[in-house]
Amino acid sequence: MDEIKKRVGKAAADLVKSGMVVGLGSGSTATWFIICLAERYHKENLDIVTVSSSKSSHALAMKLGLPYASIDAIDRITVTFDGADEIDDANQIIKGKGGALLREKILAYSSDEFIVLVDETKCSKTLGKVALPVEVTKFGYILTAKHLMPYASHISIRTHENGTIYNTDNDNFIFDLELKPVTDWKALENNLKKIPGIVETGIFLNCANRVIIGKSDGTIQFRNINP
Amino acid sequence: MDEIKKRVGKAAADLVKSGMVVGLGSGSTATWFIICLAERYHKENLDIVTVSSSKSSHALAMKLGLPYASIDAIDRITVTFDGADEIDDANQIIKGKGGALLREKILAYSSDEFIVLVDETKCSKTLGKVALPVEVTKFGYILTAKHLMPYASHISIRTHENGTIYNTDNDNFIFDLELKPVTDWKALENNLKKIPGIVETGIFLNCANRVIIGKSDGTIQFRNINP
Repeated sequence: MDEIKKRVGKAAADLVKSGMVVGLGSGSTATWFIICLAERYHKENLDIVTVSSSKSSHALAMKLGLPYASIDAIDRITVTFDGADEIDDANQIIKGKGGALLREKILAYSSDEFIVLVDETKCSKTLGKVALPVEVTKFGYILTAKHLMPYASHISIRTHENGTIYNTDNDNFIFDLELKPVTDWKALENNLKKIPGIVETGIFLNCANRVIIGKSDGTIQFRNINP
Repeated sequence: MDEIKKRVGKAAADLVKSGMVVGLGSGSTATWFIICLAERYHKENLDIVTVSSSKSSHALAMKLGLPYASIDAIDRITVTFDGADEIDDANQIIKGKGGALLREKILAYSSDEFIVLVDETKCSKTLGKVALPVEVTKFGYILTAKHLMPYASHISIRTHENGTIYNTDNDNFIFDLELKPVTDWKALENNLKKIPGIVETGIFLNCANRVIIGKSDGTIQFRNINP
Protein backbone atom coordinates (compact mmCIF):
# COMPACT_ATOMS: atom_id res chain seq x y z
CA MET A 1 0.00 0.00 0.00
CA ASP A 2 2.81 2.40 0.89
CA GLU A 3 4.33 1.74 -2.54
CA ILE A 4 1.06 2.76 -4.22
CA LYS A 5 0.76 5.92 -2.13
CA LYS A 6 4.37 6.81 -2.95
CA ARG A 7 3.67 6.38 -6.66
CA VAL A 8 0.64 8.67 -6.39
CA GLY A 9 2.68 11.21 -4.44
CA LYS A 10 5.35 11.19 -7.13
CA ALA A 11 2.84 11.57 -9.97
CA ALA A 12 1.37 14.55 -8.12
CA ALA A 13 4.75 16.15 -7.40
CA ASP A 14 5.56 15.89 -11.12
CA LEU A 15 2.70 18.35 -11.81
CA VAL A 16 4.27 21.16 -9.80
CA LYS A 17 5.93 23.96 -11.75
CA SER A 18 8.03 26.96 -10.80
CA GLY A 19 5.96 29.98 -9.87
CA MET A 20 3.33 27.99 -8.01
CA VAL A 21 1.99 28.51 -4.51
CA VAL A 22 1.45 24.88 -3.47
CA GLY A 23 -1.03 23.83 -0.79
CA LEU A 24 0.10 20.81 1.18
CA GLY A 25 -2.54 18.38 2.36
CA SER A 26 -2.24 16.12 5.37
CA GLY A 27 -2.25 12.37 5.86
CA SER A 28 -0.22 9.45 4.52
CA THR A 29 -0.60 10.06 0.78
CA ALA A 30 -0.09 13.82 1.14
CA THR A 31 3.05 12.98 3.12
CA TRP A 32 4.43 11.03 0.16
CA PHE A 33 3.57 13.98 -2.07
CA ILE A 34 5.51 16.34 0.20
CA ILE A 35 8.53 14.01 0.25
CA CYS A 36 8.52 13.67 -3.56
CA LEU A 37 8.01 17.42 -3.97
CA ALA A 38 11.00 18.16 -1.72
CA GLU A 39 13.15 15.83 -3.83
CA ARG A 40 12.15 17.66 -7.01
CA TYR A 41 12.57 21.04 -5.33
CA HIS A 42 16.16 20.33 -4.34
CA LYS A 43 17.09 18.55 -7.57
CA GLU A 44 15.53 21.06 -9.98
CA ASN A 45 15.77 24.20 -7.86
CA LEU A 46 12.05 24.90 -8.34
CA ASP A 47 10.84 28.40 -7.52
CA ILE A 48 7.82 27.53 -5.35
CA VAL A 49 6.36 28.32 -1.97
CA THR A 50 4.20 26.01 0.14
CA VAL A 51 1.41 26.50 2.66
CA SER A 52 0.31 23.70 4.96
CA SER A 53 -3.05 22.37 6.07
CA SER A 54 -1.76 21.06 9.40
CA LYS A 55 0.98 21.50 11.92
CA SER A 56 2.37 18.09 11.00
CA SER A 57 2.56 18.84 7.27
CA HIS A 58 4.18 22.16 8.07
CA ALA A 59 6.75 20.46 10.29
CA LEU A 60 7.53 17.98 7.50
CA ALA A 61 7.88 20.73 4.88
CA MET A 62 10.26 22.62 7.17
CA LYS A 63 12.28 19.49 7.92
CA LEU A 64 12.65 18.70 4.22
CA GLY A 65 13.76 22.24 3.42
CA LEU A 66 10.75 23.28 1.34
CA PRO A 67 10.10 27.05 1.17
CA TYR A 68 6.96 27.86 3.11
CA ALA A 69 4.74 30.82 3.81
CA SER A 70 2.15 31.59 6.46
CA ILE A 71 -1.39 31.19 5.16
CA ASP A 72 -1.82 34.86 6.04
CA ALA A 73 1.01 35.93 3.76
CA ILE A 74 -0.45 34.57 0.53
CA ASP A 75 -3.18 35.87 -1.68
CA ARG A 76 -4.26 32.71 -3.40
CA ILE A 77 -3.06 29.12 -3.74
CA THR A 78 -2.22 27.85 -7.22
CA VAL A 79 -2.88 24.21 -6.49
CA THR A 80 -3.47 22.09 -3.40
CA PHE A 81 -2.70 18.37 -3.29
CA ASP A 82 -4.52 16.40 -0.64
CA GLY A 83 -5.72 12.91 0.17
CA ALA A 84 -9.24 11.69 0.88
CA ASP A 85 -10.88 9.07 3.07
CA GLU A 86 -13.40 8.29 0.35
CA ILE A 87 -14.28 9.63 -3.09
CA ASP A 88 -17.24 8.50 -5.15
CA ASP A 89 -17.95 8.39 -8.88
CA ALA A 90 -19.47 11.89 -8.70
CA ASN A 91 -16.25 13.12 -7.04
CA GLN A 92 -17.98 13.79 -3.75
CA ILE A 93 -15.42 13.43 -0.99
CA ILE A 94 -15.21 12.63 2.71
CA LYS A 95 -12.09 13.84 4.49
CA GLY A 96 -10.97 14.29 8.06
CA LYS A 97 -9.69 10.93 9.26
CA GLY A 98 -6.36 12.66 9.89
CA GLY A 99 -8.07 15.40 11.87
CA ALA A 100 -7.10 18.30 9.59
CA LEU A 101 -10.44 18.76 7.79
CA LEU A 102 -10.94 22.41 8.72
CA ARG A 103 -7.59 23.68 7.52
CA GLU A 104 -7.74 21.36 4.51
CA LYS A 105 -11.09 22.87 3.53
CA ILE A 106 -9.79 26.41 4.04
CA LEU A 107 -6.91 25.64 1.66
CA ALA A 108 -9.17 23.90 -0.87
CA TYR A 109 -11.57 26.85 -0.87
CA SER A 110 -8.79 29.29 -1.76
CA SER A 111 -7.04 27.13 -4.35
CA ASP A 112 -7.31 27.63 -8.10
CA GLU A 113 -6.99 23.87 -8.42
CA PHE A 114 -7.58 21.07 -5.93
CA ILE A 115 -6.06 17.72 -6.77
CA VAL A 116 -7.07 14.64 -4.81
CA LEU A 117 -4.60 11.83 -4.21
CA VAL A 118 -5.96 8.39 -3.43
CA ASP A 119 -5.37 4.71 -3.81
CA GLU A 120 -8.20 2.76 -5.34
CA THR A 121 -9.42 1.43 -1.98
CA LYS A 122 -10.70 4.99 -1.31
CA CYS A 123 -12.91 5.00 -4.39
CA SER A 124 -16.57 4.02 -4.10
CA LYS A 125 -19.62 4.12 -6.30
CA THR A 126 -21.61 6.25 -3.88
CA LEU A 127 -20.28 8.03 -0.83
CA GLY A 128 -20.87 6.72 2.68
CA LYS A 129 -18.54 3.83 3.41
CA VAL A 130 -16.46 5.72 5.95
CA ALA A 131 -17.49 7.64 9.06
CA LEU A 132 -18.02 11.37 8.62
CA PRO A 133 -15.75 13.53 10.79
CA VAL A 134 -17.25 16.76 12.09
CA GLU A 135 -15.18 19.38 13.90
CA VAL A 136 -17.02 21.01 16.81
CA THR A 137 -16.28 23.66 19.41
CA LYS A 138 -15.47 22.36 22.86
CA PHE A 139 -18.11 24.65 24.35
CA GLY A 140 -21.44 22.87 24.19
CA TYR A 141 -20.08 19.74 22.51
CA ILE A 142 -22.49 17.46 24.39
CA LEU A 143 -25.48 19.48 23.18
CA THR A 144 -23.98 19.56 19.69
CA ALA A 145 -23.77 15.75 19.72
CA LYS A 146 -27.49 15.64 20.52
CA HIS A 147 -28.25 17.85 17.52
CA LEU A 148 -26.24 15.45 15.34
CA MET A 149 -28.22 12.40 16.45
CA PRO A 150 -30.96 12.70 13.80
CA TYR A 151 -28.29 12.18 11.15
CA ALA A 152 -26.25 9.37 12.66
CA SER A 153 -26.74 5.82 13.83
CA HIS A 154 -23.63 6.15 15.98
CA ILE A 155 -21.51 9.09 17.13
CA SER A 156 -18.12 8.81 18.77
CA ILE A 157 -15.78 11.50 19.94
CA ARG A 158 -12.31 11.22 18.43
CA THR A 159 -9.73 10.07 20.99
CA HIS A 160 -6.05 9.26 21.03
CA GLU A 161 -5.04 5.64 21.51
CA ASN A 162 -4.58 6.30 25.24
CA GLY A 163 -8.23 7.37 25.47
CA THR A 164 -7.70 11.12 25.90
CA ILE A 165 -9.86 13.31 23.67
CA TYR A 166 -8.21 14.36 20.41
CA ASN A 167 -7.69 18.11 19.99
CA THR A 168 -7.51 19.53 16.48
CA ASP A 169 -4.88 22.06 15.44
CA ASN A 170 -7.65 24.63 16.06
CA ASP A 171 -8.25 23.33 19.60
CA ASN A 172 -11.65 21.81 18.80
CA PHE A 173 -13.02 18.28 19.14
CA ILE A 174 -13.99 15.85 16.37
CA PHE A 175 -17.07 13.65 16.27
CA ASP A 176 -17.01 10.65 13.93
CA LEU A 177 -20.51 9.96 12.63
CA GLU A 178 -21.75 6.67 11.28
CA LEU A 179 -24.39 8.24 9.11
CA LYS A 180 -27.91 7.07 8.46
CA PRO A 181 -28.41 6.54 4.70
CA VAL A 182 -27.80 9.80 2.82
CA THR A 183 -29.55 10.64 -0.43
CA ASP A 184 -28.51 14.29 -0.75
CA TRP A 185 -25.04 15.16 0.48
CA LYS A 186 -25.45 18.86 -0.28
CA ALA A 187 -28.57 19.05 1.88
CA LEU A 188 -26.79 17.13 4.64
CA GLU A 189 -23.84 19.52 4.51
CA ASN A 190 -26.17 22.54 4.67
CA ASN A 191 -28.14 21.09 7.57
CA LEU A 192 -25.05 20.22 9.56
CA LYS A 193 -23.54 23.66 9.07
CA LYS A 194 -26.69 25.28 10.43
CA ILE A 195 -26.03 23.75 13.85
CA PRO A 196 -24.15 26.23 16.01
CA GLY A 197 -21.06 24.61 17.46
CA ILE A 198 -20.23 22.78 14.25
CA VAL A 199 -17.11 24.43 12.90
CA GLU A 200 -16.66 22.28 9.79
CA THR A 201 -17.63 18.95 8.30
CA GLY A 202 -15.59 16.45 6.32
CA ILE A 203 -17.95 16.66 3.33
CA PHE A 204 -16.07 18.16 0.35
CA LEU A 205 -18.41 18.76 -2.61
CA ASN A 206 -17.65 20.35 -5.99
CA CYS A 207 -14.15 20.82 -4.85
CA ALA A 208 -11.89 18.44 -6.77
CA ASN A 209 -10.54 19.49 -10.17
CA ARG A 210 -8.52 16.34 -10.70
CA VAL A 211 -8.10 12.95 -9.02
CA ILE A 212 -4.95 10.85 -9.11
CA ILE A 213 -5.73 7.23 -8.33
CA GLY A 214 -3.10 4.62 -7.53
CA LYS A 215 -4.18 1.16 -8.64
CA SER A 216 -3.05 -2.08 -7.03
CA ASP A 217 -1.62 -3.20 -10.40
CA GLY A 218 0.90 -0.40 -10.16
CA THR A 219 -0.71 1.94 -12.67
CA ILE A 220 -1.82 5.49 -12.05
CA GLN A 221 -5.17 6.76 -13.29
CA PHE A 222 -5.89 10.48 -13.80
CA ARG A 223 -9.50 11.59 -13.56
CA ASN A 224 -10.04 15.12 -14.86
CA ILE A 225 -13.19 16.84 -13.71
CA ASN A 226 -14.99 19.35 -15.84
CA PRO A 227 -15.88 22.41 -13.87
CA MET B 1 -30.63 54.31 29.12
CA ASP B 2 -29.29 52.22 31.99
CA GLU B 3 -32.61 52.75 33.76
CA ILE B 4 -34.48 51.33 30.75
CA LYS B 5 -32.17 48.32 30.51
CA LYS B 6 -32.60 47.67 34.21
CA ARG B 7 -36.39 47.77 33.86
CA VAL B 8 -36.19 45.26 30.97
CA GLY B 9 -33.88 43.05 33.01
CA LYS B 10 -36.31 43.09 35.91
CA ALA B 11 -39.33 42.29 33.72
CA ALA B 12 -37.37 39.36 32.32
CA ALA B 13 -36.23 38.09 35.72
CA ASP B 14 -39.88 38.13 36.85
CA LEU B 15 -40.61 35.41 34.26
CA VAL B 16 -38.25 32.89 35.84
CA LYS B 17 -39.80 30.10 37.89
CA SER B 18 -38.44 27.36 40.11
CA GLY B 19 -37.45 24.25 38.19
CA MET B 20 -36.01 26.15 35.25
CA VAL B 21 -32.60 25.79 33.63
CA VAL B 22 -31.91 29.42 32.72
CA GLY B 23 -29.56 30.45 29.92
CA LEU B 24 -27.74 33.71 30.64
CA GLY B 25 -27.00 35.98 27.72
CA SER B 26 -24.17 38.49 27.55
CA GLY B 27 -23.98 42.25 27.23
CA SER B 28 -25.37 45.23 29.13
CA THR B 29 -29.08 44.31 29.17
CA ALA B 30 -28.37 40.65 29.93
CA THR B 31 -26.19 41.88 32.79
CA TRP B 32 -29.17 43.71 34.30
CA PHE B 33 -31.21 40.55 33.87
CA ILE B 34 -28.60 38.53 35.77
CA ILE B 35 -28.47 41.09 38.58
CA CYS B 36 -32.29 41.14 38.92
CA LEU B 37 -32.44 37.34 38.73
CA ALA B 38 -29.89 37.02 41.54
CA GLU B 39 -31.97 39.38 43.69
CA ARG B 40 -35.08 37.24 43.14
CA TYR B 41 -33.09 34.02 43.66
CA HIS B 42 -31.85 35.11 47.07
CA LYS B 43 -35.13 36.71 48.15
CA GLU B 44 -37.46 33.91 47.03
CA ASN B 45 -35.07 30.97 47.31
CA LEU B 46 -35.81 29.94 43.71
CA ASP B 47 -34.83 26.41 42.68
CA ILE B 48 -33.00 27.19 39.43
CA VAL B 49 -29.71 26.53 37.71
CA THR B 50 -28.00 28.80 35.20
CA VAL B 51 -25.70 28.25 32.23
CA SER B 52 -23.75 31.12 30.71
CA SER B 53 -23.04 32.25 27.17
CA SER B 54 -19.74 33.92 28.03
CA LYS B 55 -16.95 33.87 30.55
CA SER B 56 -18.02 37.32 31.76
CA SER B 57 -21.65 36.31 32.37
CA HIS B 58 -20.44 33.20 34.15
CA ALA B 59 -18.15 35.28 36.36
CA LEU B 60 -21.04 37.60 37.20
CA ALA B 61 -23.39 34.70 38.02
CA MET B 62 -20.75 33.20 40.30
CA LYS B 63 -20.08 36.54 41.99
CA LEU B 64 -23.80 37.06 42.64
CA GLY B 65 -24.20 33.58 44.09
CA LEU B 66 -26.45 32.14 41.37
CA PRO B 67 -26.37 28.34 41.03
CA TYR B 68 -24.66 27.41 37.79
CA ALA B 69 -23.91 24.33 35.74
CA SER B 70 -21.45 23.56 32.99
CA ILE B 71 -23.09 23.57 29.56
CA ASP B 72 -21.96 19.93 29.32
CA ALA B 73 -23.89 18.94 32.43
CA ILE B 74 -27.32 19.94 31.18
CA ASP B 75 -29.66 18.26 28.76
CA ARG B 76 -31.72 21.18 27.63
CA ILE B 77 -32.22 24.83 28.59
CA THR B 78 -35.72 25.89 29.65
CA VAL B 79 -35.34 29.51 28.66
CA THR B 80 -32.50 31.80 27.62
CA PHE B 81 -32.64 35.57 28.10
CA ASP B 82 -30.31 37.57 25.89
CA GLY B 83 -29.90 41.00 24.37
CA ALA B 84 -29.61 41.97 20.71
CA ASP B 85 -27.79 44.61 18.69
CA GLU B 86 -30.78 44.97 16.40
CA ILE B 87 -34.17 43.32 15.93
CA ASP B 88 -36.57 44.04 13.10
CA ASP B 89 -40.34 43.82 12.75
CA ALA B 90 -40.01 40.23 11.49
CA ASN B 91 -37.98 39.40 14.61
CA GLN B 92 -34.81 38.82 12.64
CA ILE B 93 -31.87 39.61 14.89
CA ILE B 94 -28.26 40.69 14.68
CA LYS B 95 -26.09 39.87 17.69
CA GLY B 96 -22.42 39.78 18.53
CA LYS B 97 -21.40 43.30 19.43
CA GLY B 98 -20.33 41.92 22.80
CA GLY B 99 -18.29 39.19 21.12
CA ALA B 100 -20.23 36.22 22.51
CA LEU B 101 -22.28 35.36 19.40
CA LEU B 102 -21.11 31.75 19.09
CA ARG B 103 -21.92 30.68 22.63
CA GLU B 104 -25.09 32.75 22.59
CA LYS B 105 -26.24 30.90 19.46
CA ILE B 106 -25.34 27.53 20.98
CA LEU B 107 -27.50 28.36 23.99
CA ALA B 108 -30.35 29.72 21.86
CA TYR B 109 -30.33 26.59 19.70
CA SER B 110 -30.77 24.32 22.73
CA SER B 111 -33.34 26.43 24.55
CA ASP B 112 -37.05 25.62 24.66
CA GLU B 113 -37.66 29.35 24.74
CA PHE B 114 -35.47 32.28 23.69
CA ILE B 115 -36.43 35.69 25.04
CA VAL B 116 -34.83 38.80 23.61
CA LEU B 117 -34.24 41.84 25.82
CA VAL B 118 -33.85 45.21 24.12
CA ASP B 119 -34.49 48.89 24.50
CA GLU B 120 -36.42 50.49 21.67
CA THR B 121 -33.30 51.95 20.03
CA LYS B 122 -32.45 48.36 18.97
CA CYS B 123 -35.71 47.95 17.07
CA SER B 124 -35.83 48.63 13.34
CA LYS B 125 -38.27 48.10 10.52
CA THR B 126 -35.86 46.01 8.48
CA LEU B 127 -32.57 44.59 9.65
CA GLY B 128 -29.25 46.07 8.64
CA LYS B 129 -28.57 49.21 10.67
CA VAL B 130 -25.70 47.69 12.63
CA ALA B 131 -22.55 45.93 11.46
CA LEU B 132 -22.73 42.14 11.24
CA PRO B 133 -20.21 40.34 13.47
CA VAL B 134 -18.78 37.11 12.09
CA GLU B 135 -16.58 34.80 14.18
CA VAL B 136 -13.72 33.25 12.20
CA THR B 137 -10.87 30.86 12.87
CA LYS B 138 -7.48 32.48 13.26
CA PHE B 139 -6.04 30.11 10.69
CA GLY B 140 -6.63 31.60 7.26
CA TYR B 141 -8.44 34.69 8.52
CA ILE B 142 -6.98 36.91 5.80
CA LEU B 143 -8.27 34.56 3.09
CA THR B 144 -11.59 34.34 4.91
CA ALA B 145 -11.86 38.15 4.82
CA LYS B 146 -11.40 38.01 1.06
CA HIS B 147 -14.27 35.54 0.75
CA LEU B 148 -16.45 37.92 2.77
CA MET B 149 -15.77 40.87 0.47
CA PRO B 150 -18.62 40.15 -1.97
CA TYR B 151 -21.06 40.68 0.89
CA ALA B 152 -19.60 43.76 2.55
CA SER B 153 -18.78 47.34 1.70
CA HIS B 154 -16.34 47.42 4.59
CA ILE B 155 -14.77 44.75 6.81
CA SER B 156 -12.88 45.44 10.01
CA ILE B 157 -11.28 43.04 12.41
CA ARG B 158 -12.50 43.50 16.00
CA THR B 159 -9.84 45.03 18.22
CA HIS B 160 -9.52 46.15 21.81
CA GLU B 161 -9.25 49.85 22.50
CA ASN B 162 -5.46 49.53 22.64
CA GLY B 163 -5.46 48.17 19.08
CA THR B 164 -4.69 44.52 19.83
CA ILE B 165 -6.91 42.00 18.07
CA TYR B 166 -9.91 40.84 20.09
CA ASN B 167 -9.97 37.12 20.95
CA THR B 168 -13.32 35.48 21.55
CA ASP B 169 -13.92 33.09 24.45
CA ASN B 170 -13.33 30.36 21.85
CA ASP B 171 -10.00 31.87 20.80
CA ASN B 172 -11.22 33.04 17.40
CA PHE B 173 -11.28 36.45 15.74
CA ILE B 174 -14.32 38.58 14.86
CA PHE B 175 -14.86 40.52 11.64
CA ASP B 176 -17.42 43.32 11.70
CA LEU B 177 -19.08 43.63 8.29
CA GLU B 178 -20.79 46.70 6.95
CA LEU B 179 -23.05 44.77 4.64
CA LYS B 180 -24.11 45.60 1.14
CA PRO B 181 -27.92 45.81 0.94
CA VAL B 182 -29.48 42.47 1.98
CA THR B 183 -32.78 41.24 0.58
CA ASP B 184 -32.71 37.69 1.92
CA TRP B 185 -31.11 37.19 5.34
CA LYS B 186 -31.61 33.44 5.28
CA ALA B 187 -29.73 33.15 1.99
CA LEU B 188 -26.99 35.41 3.34
CA GLU B 189 -26.66 33.25 6.46
CA ASN B 190 -26.46 30.08 4.37
CA ASN B 191 -23.87 31.58 2.03
CA LEU B 192 -21.69 32.84 4.85
CA LYS B 193 -21.78 29.51 6.66
CA LYS B 194 -20.55 27.74 3.51
CA ILE B 195 -17.24 29.58 3.74
CA PRO B 196 -14.73 27.41 5.58
CA GLY B 197 -13.12 29.40 8.39
CA ILE B 198 -16.40 31.04 9.38
CA VAL B 199 -17.34 29.56 12.74
CA GLU B 200 -20.55 31.49 13.29
CA THR B 201 -22.39 34.63 12.23
CA GLY B 202 -24.38 37.12 14.26
CA ILE B 203 -27.55 36.50 12.22
CA PHE B 204 -30.22 34.94 14.47
CA LEU B 205 -33.31 33.93 12.47
CA ASN B 206 -36.49 32.17 13.67
CA CYS B 207 -34.99 32.06 17.07
CA ALA B 208 -36.90 34.49 19.31
CA ASN B 209 -40.07 33.31 21.06
CA ARG B 210 -40.68 36.57 22.87
CA VAL B 211 -39.23 40.08 22.87
CA ILE B 212 -39.22 42.43 25.85
CA ILE B 213 -38.80 46.02 24.72
CA GLY B 214 -37.98 48.88 27.07
CA LYS B 215 -39.47 52.19 25.86
CA SER B 216 -38.04 55.61 26.58
CA ASP B 217 -41.36 56.59 28.22
CA GLY B 218 -40.67 54.02 30.95
CA THR B 219 -43.11 51.37 29.74
CA ILE B 220 -42.31 47.79 28.84
CA GLN B 221 -43.72 46.16 25.73
CA PHE B 222 -43.99 42.39 25.34
CA ARG B 223 -43.99 40.99 21.81
CA ASN B 224 -45.04 37.34 21.67
CA ILE B 225 -44.04 35.45 18.57
CA ASN B 226 -46.12 32.65 17.17
CA PRO B 227 -43.98 29.68 16.34
